[in-house]
Amino acid sequence: MTNSVKHTNITKISDSGIESKPDLLAIEEPLEIRVGFGSMSERQQKSLSVTMRTPGHDFELAAGFLFTEGIIQSFSQIESVKYCEDGGKQEQKENIVRVELKSEVKINFEKLQRHFYTSSSCGVCGKTSIDAVKVNCESLSDSFTISSEVVHSLSDKLRKAQLVFEYTGGLHASAIFDASGNLILLREDVGRHNALDKIIGAMLFKNETPLSNYALLVSGRASFELVQKAAVAGIPVLAAVGAPSSLAVQLANDAGMTLLGFVRDQRFNIYCGEQRITSR
Amino acid sequence: MTNSVKHTNITKISDSGIESKPDLLAIEEPLEIRVGFGSMSERQQKSLSVTMRTPGHDFELAAGFLFTEGIIQSFSQIESVKYCEDGGKQEQKENIVRVELKSEVKINFEKLQRHFYTSSSCGVCGKTSIDAVKVNCESLSDSFTISSEVVHSLSDKLRKAQLVFEYTGGLHASAIFDASGNLILLREDVGRHNALDKIIGAMLFKNETPLSNYALLVSGRASFELVQKAAVAGIPVLAAVGAPSSLAVQLANDAGMTLLGFVRDQRFNIYCGEQRITSR
Repeated sequence: MTNSVKHTNITKISDSGIESKPDLLAIEEPLEIRVGFGSMSERQQKSLSVTMRTPGHDFELAAGFLFTEGIIQSFSQIESVKYCEDGGKQEQKENIVRVELKSEVKINFEKLQRHFYTSSSCGVCGKTSIDAVKVNCESLSDSFTISSEVVHSLSDKLRKAQLVFEYTGGLHASAIFDASGNLILLREDVGRHNALDKIIGAMLFKNETPLSNYALLVSGRASFELVQKAAVAGIPVLAAVGAPSSLAVQLANDAGMTLLGFVRDQRFNIYCGEQRITSR
Repeated sequence: MTNSVKHTNITKISDSGIESKPDLLAIEEPLEIRVGFGSMSERQQKSLSVTMRTPGHDFELAAGFLFTEGIIQSFSQIESVKYCEDGGKQEQKENIVRVELKSEVKINFEKLQRHFYTSSSCGVCGKTSIDAVKVNCESLSDSFTISSEVVHSLSDKLRKAQLVFEYTGGLHASAIFDASGNLILLREDVGRHNALDKIIGAMLFKNETPLSNYALLVSGRASFELVQKAAVAGIPVLAAVGAPSSLAVQLANDAGMTLLGFVRDQRFNIYCGEQRITSR
């Protein structure tokens, strides 16, 4: 947790008066994700993204990003992942990650441009956005089910495991659970898409994608982007503590995903994919 | 509000049982922002961004984005703003906005590339990110002050005015207030940076930038990006209902901005710029 929080001093104003005290902040720092590709004799590098993230699990974040954005399809396409000490300034050292792809992996940059256009920010209407995503989607497991009783238990488990949020109030979380409600993996980040990419990247490293046997819980709202990443990773159930957007519901529905919202305080809403929620 | 929400049907699971009922979703749709520039004889167009937003106030969003990203410095540089009916498909019609700049406005695309690199996502360390932003920042007003009593009142006023959130639970909000706590303008959006760009764009249209006499309240957490946009617009006080990140505090401090967090339930924390908060 040491690289996730930073000490600061604040002035707290409340009914009990004015108080100067130490406090903790969630760390936000840029991470540049680069990809190395091409034949051994003609090796190339391209910068794909700079994202504001909380340091920690950066390799998982980079690999998860490449996977959920459709650039790679499996762990076996990755040669190595490392920090790229470009320029050499100390403070930049751990803010560039380079994912080395195996020489036989082909990237179509024209497609990639289009893809970035249509995924991190989509096409120019909801329908084209959804169509673009569907190309990369796993077909989602029909056999995975989860009981409403287990769903009711998820948000408490998330909150209890959210260490950094506890200290700073400043982080989004993503966590995956099995059908019995056991927490398998939790990640926290200032960016909610990063928390999810870190989870998916970690499971990719374990060679456990597609994530057909897990339900995902996200601490905030469910956006198009989160549903997209979950669908690419093959996650059949996405539960959000907050509300989903219109396009999140539309994409989940089209992808055959179960989407739950307002999962807290012993209640939740089912937006689509009701067949995966059992009564016991 | 009609283009901000969409009707849907949900299944609600709670202690009182299973209930099928109609519900409302916050609309999320992509918006492409294009800029038209160059001399009258050699007019050019460039696509700058595709953002997922809630439809409504799209012209303000596009103009605000150009302003907070440092591409334009004043309202007088804009010739016109219009929907660009490219391709002509009905569903795409209102998802592309083109901002026509006056022919004498120069854009340096090399700088622009670097700028996008360093702002929407920053440089490769916090310090370079902050340095890049500072170039475009207004010097913030020292004469604007606001009392802690007024600050305590802001989050209730925001929540009461947040119509769409009330219905959907799905939108971020930004609002500006004067020193007496009067709500001047509120905007809601699925993207919190969009809500802020819509506010700033609206004030730009009224020729009221820099926003030296206003405090800004945002419904969620304070990220680097929100502090950056507020600083470029000259807003001296940024208050967040949630927590700020480390880089948000660092940028606010460097820019001479007052940054408040956890502004709710009759309390708040001052992270920097304490001199603008008065006791009465």
